[in-house]
Amino acid sequence: MSQKPSLKHKMHEVIFGTEKGPGRNFDIAVIIIILASVFALFLDSVAAINAKYGHLLFTAELAFTFLFTVEYLARIYCVPNRKKYIFSFYGLVDLIAILPTYLSIFIPGAQHLLVVRIFRVLRIFRIFKLLHYMIEAHVLLRSLESSRHKISVFLVAVVTLVIVFGSLMYLIEGPGNGFSSLPKSIYWAVVTVTTVGYGDIAPQTAMGQAVAAMAMITSYAIIAIPTGILSAELIRESQRQISQQQCNSCKKLGHDKNANYCKYCGAQLPVTE
Amino acid sequence: MSQKPSLKHKMHEVIFGTEKGPGRNFDIAVIIIILASVFALFLDSVAAINAKYGHLLFTAELAFTFLFTVEYLARIYCVPNRKKYIFSFYGLVDLIAILPTYLSIFIPGAQHLLVVRIFRVLRIFRIFKLLHYMIEAHVLLRSLESSRHKISVFLVAVVTLVIVFGSLMYLIEGPGNGFSSLPKSIYWAVVTVTTVGYGDIAPQTAMGQAVAAMAMITSYAIIAIPTGILSAELIRESQRQISQQQCNSCKKLGHDKNANYCKYCGAQLPVTE
Amino acid sequence: MSQKPSLKHKMHEVIFGTEKGPGRNFDIAVIIIILASVFALFLDSVAAINAKYGHLLFTAELAFTFLFTVEYLARIYCVPNRKKYIFSFYGLVDLIAILPTYLSIFIPGAQHLLVVRIFRVLRIFRIFKLLHYMIEAHVLLRSLESSRHKISVFLVAVVTLVIVFGSLMYLIEGPGNGFSSLPKSIYWAVVTVTTVGYGDIAPQTAMGQAVAAMAMITSYAIIAIPTGILSAELIRESQRQISQQQCNSCKKLGHDKNANYCKYCGAQLPVTE
Amino acid sequence: MSQKPSLKHKMHEVIFGTEKGPGRNFDIAVIIIILASVFALFLDSVAAINAKYGHLLFTAELAFTFLFTVEYLARIYCVPNRKKYIFSFYGLVDLIAILPTYLSIFIPGAQHLLVVRIFRVLRIFRIFKLLHYMIEAHVLLRSLESSRHKISVFLVAVVTLVIVFGSLMYLIEGPGNGFSSLPKSIYWAVVTVTTVGYGDIAPQTAMGQAVAAMAMITSYAIIAIPTGILSAELIRESQRQISQQQCNSCKKLGHDKNANYCKYCGAQLPVTE
Repeated sequence: MSQKPSLKHKMHEVIFGTEKGPGRNFDIAVIIIILASVFALFLDSVAAINAKYGHLLFTAELAFTFLFTVEYLARIYCVPNRKKYIFSFYGLVDLIAILPTYLSIFIPGAQHLLVVRIFRVLRIFRIFKLLHYMIEAHVLLRSLESSRHKISVFLVAVVTLVIVFGSLMYLIEGPGNGFSSLPKSIYWAVVTVTTVGYGDIAPQTAMGQAVAAMAMITSYAIIAIPTGILSAELIRESQRQISQQQCNSCKKLGHDKNANYCKYCGAQLPVTE
Repeated sequence: MSQKPSLKHKMHEVIFGTEKGPGRNFDIAVIIIILASVFALFLDSVAAINAKYGHLLFTAELAFTFLFTVEYLARIYCVPNRKKYIFSFYGLVDLIAILPTYLSIFIPGAQHLLVVRIFRVLRIFRIFKLLHYMIEAHVLLRSLESSRHKISVFLVAVVTLVIVFGSLMYLIEGPGNGFSSLPKSIYWAVVTVTTVGYGDIAPQTAMGQAVAAMAMITSYAIIAIPTGILSAELIRESQRQISQQQCNSCKKLGHDKNANYCKYCGAQLPVTE
Repeated sequence: MSQKPSLKHKMHEVIFGTEKGPGRNFDIAVIIIILASVFALFLDSVAAINAKYGHLLFTAELAFTFLFTVEYLARIYCVPNRKKYIFSFYGLVDLIAILPTYLSIFIPGAQHLLVVRIFRVLRIFRIFKLLHYMIEAHVLLRSLESSRHKISVFLVAVVTLVIVFGSLMYLIEGPGNGFSSLPKSIYWAVVTVTTVGYGDIAPQTAMGQAVAAMAMITSYAIIAIPTGILSAELIRESQRQISQQQCNSCKKLGHDKNANYCKYCGAQLPVTE
Repeated sequence: MSQKPSLKHKMHEVIFGTEKGPGRNFDIAVIIIILASVFALFLDSVAAINAKYGHLLFTAELAFTFLFTVEYLARIYCVPNRKKYIFSFYGLVDLIAILPTYLSIFIPGAQHLLVVRIFRVLRIFRIFKLLHYMIEAHVLLRSLESSRHKISVFLVAVVTLVIVFGSLMYLIEGPGNGFSSLPKSIYWAVVTVTTVGYGDIAPQTAMGQAVAAMAMITSYAIIAIPTGILSAELIRESQRQISQQQCNSCKKLGHDKNANYCKYCGAQLPVTE
């Protein structure tokens, strides 16, 4: 009964745990190494730094990859269901974090392939794994999830608007003023409607500027839509204050804080303070 | 009584239905064809692609037009009130989707008219027809509808602000710095107040930059207005969605839409459709 | 008792009334004339149009001014308290709408003064007078009014942020990269924080770009503040649904819809349907 | 008992008080001097003005520093806990407001160091001290405080997105089109996702423009997140403000803060401070 936990079990606690001391410290150490390795990739991509410290940064990359490999193997070793972990989203991200470096070692020339080097940046996704455990992230994701349909309606409207305005400007301004094709005009419309406004393509004719001004003012109401959707959703979420109690009878969750009886089966809910 | 539905009736179900299997599949097929045909128009507008694959894309356009024509005729055939459909918004959009191609076939030279070719892009509006059936779109449209008056007040305020700031900058900067006329200065004001900021026209004098900075900070409060209006409207809308059913036993209100039993007294709630 | 209303009274009803037929039609006519006269000013400011149609537009301006003068005199004639009207905001706007044209007629050369011509644009403010009667505008203004303090706190924070980021960038980038003085650097900070982003001044050094990126991400939280303030205010406004009933005892207004007794003096409120 | 307050006590009231007459006037005087001294720094940084009025502005700076020194010493004199004040945030800001000028007087050449001169701008933070006393600022800060976790989740998401999009564009566009390194590409991504859009770096290839358009549309949903978070928080905050007092007679809650009588039964409400 008071059996000592196995090494495997202890490792699992440290590597996958997030609440208690060692698990938490392990997580923080991993995040720091991830950020350091991504920062090294950033520096390496600057031509001047690469010329001077390229060798040093490559050694650092090897060290980081070694650490990530040890961590990856340790995770595989102590996880209960290995297959499930390896093919899970985070298992694949963990693999992608180390694969490009091995490719660049074993395949001659691969190190110089930009794609191989850029792929390493994807290890930043590993930080999301930690985010995964945060309650706040759950609330935000649930709000995004439940406003999914409304947001897709909004996106269809934006895409249509952008196509119509882009086509109109292609007709009005024409290739002479930078609106050289429909896709380019639509790119302009996206840049304008999202209020980014690079200015690499801008209307030159009076007519084009008038239509562009209309598109900008229209984009105002459009920016308001996703914000309104998400605000409404987050407010509903915060007002709902769903209790964590479970019905003893039908085992369902999701009861309001002020509920005395299960809304699904009518059984009395356990009393909470 | 168990009379077999006529062909016309069956066709109507497939073409106009959206819920059931064949109606849904038909809708999805139409959307894919619409998107493919719009994508072909995009490609055709790129000079390099047009030079190489222009003939192929024209053939594709003919095929798309043929499909749309068949669909259009089928809709006219099986709709109960033909006149109403033909002159409805979507009936006209369906016609506009095929007309330009016929014009370009039968009128020599029309194919090279840019307007005729751009007109075809309007078939993207046909996708809205599908949106029309989505409940989420209804909620958004109802919210926009009921905040119509507030939004028009906001637009009058924006237009006035833009005219005043534009005129002021025309006075301060003058034609020498790109503010060559009142309409152009107002175009600058729209670009600035909507935070698009192309940079094609930008204040050069210290005075002009100070006034521009003021216009930008003012535009902050302005962006907040439509978002606030729509948020308030969407929240009101979402609060309205709480079921209006009353418990027969304790007479209390405020039950969730998915509740079967009263959360206050445990009595079964009356069944609603 | 059934005395016929005087001409003065009838005129007052038409000119100042907004609800009934003739008053409403008069308002619409005035708005159309204002918009037409402002549009004429726009056209006149375009050099090419002025060269060709300058004389015609000047004649139109004279006609518009004549109409506005007749209206102004009629308003003075039929208003009960003449002094109050003349020195009210809208009385002064009405005067400013006609004054510049008379100046340009009676003072030789004044017509060519840009200031005199631009001043005429201010007649656009006359449209606000109509807005004044709209209930929706009242709700928006009341919301802006009651969030006045919060918005000024926000503005102080923005101004401080802009000064700190502007000074920092002046230090980092220096005059060589366009940040030629503190005011100019602060102008850049305003352009950046409000997400306008002209690109006339942009950071060139790696350090400057890093600080600029920080300023941009900070500006995110900042845009959220006024929107959040106004959303909260508009929602409160819409939930409050203050009844229009007046306490018979203390004559105070502002009772909630569900109130039975005056919250100020405790007297029973008149029953409403 | 009716002992006369000491000079120290009186000074403390004037310098640290904010509500009553002399304390309030003192605060306003300090704010005006701060703004004037910051404005003088702005002017001094413009090369043309410095060349002409540099001596005058330096004299003004000496005068401002003298006033701030007197104020700083007076604060130290009359504050109850001197050590605590000196090492508090505002104590340090007060010191920083005067230190650079003394450095530039006593250390030869220091006056020409840009850092020393820019440091003076930090005295703008002294204005925050006043903000500190405003209730509205407290509400805003409390809302920001309680949405701290949600906002940090949002920031992690933004940073990840910006890194992924930046790396992708570095791969697609490459150094030839301005995306010369990973940090620079990420700077571009920040400029784009925050909708600032300088246009100093902009995608040139069709592929790059398509990815950029996707990044822009994604940034839409992202702008909605902090606004939604803060709106929800401010609404919760404003709903909390409804007084918690209960009617002694009918035991109902939900009375406005300014209510003297119960709106349900007309009984007098208990007096709250």
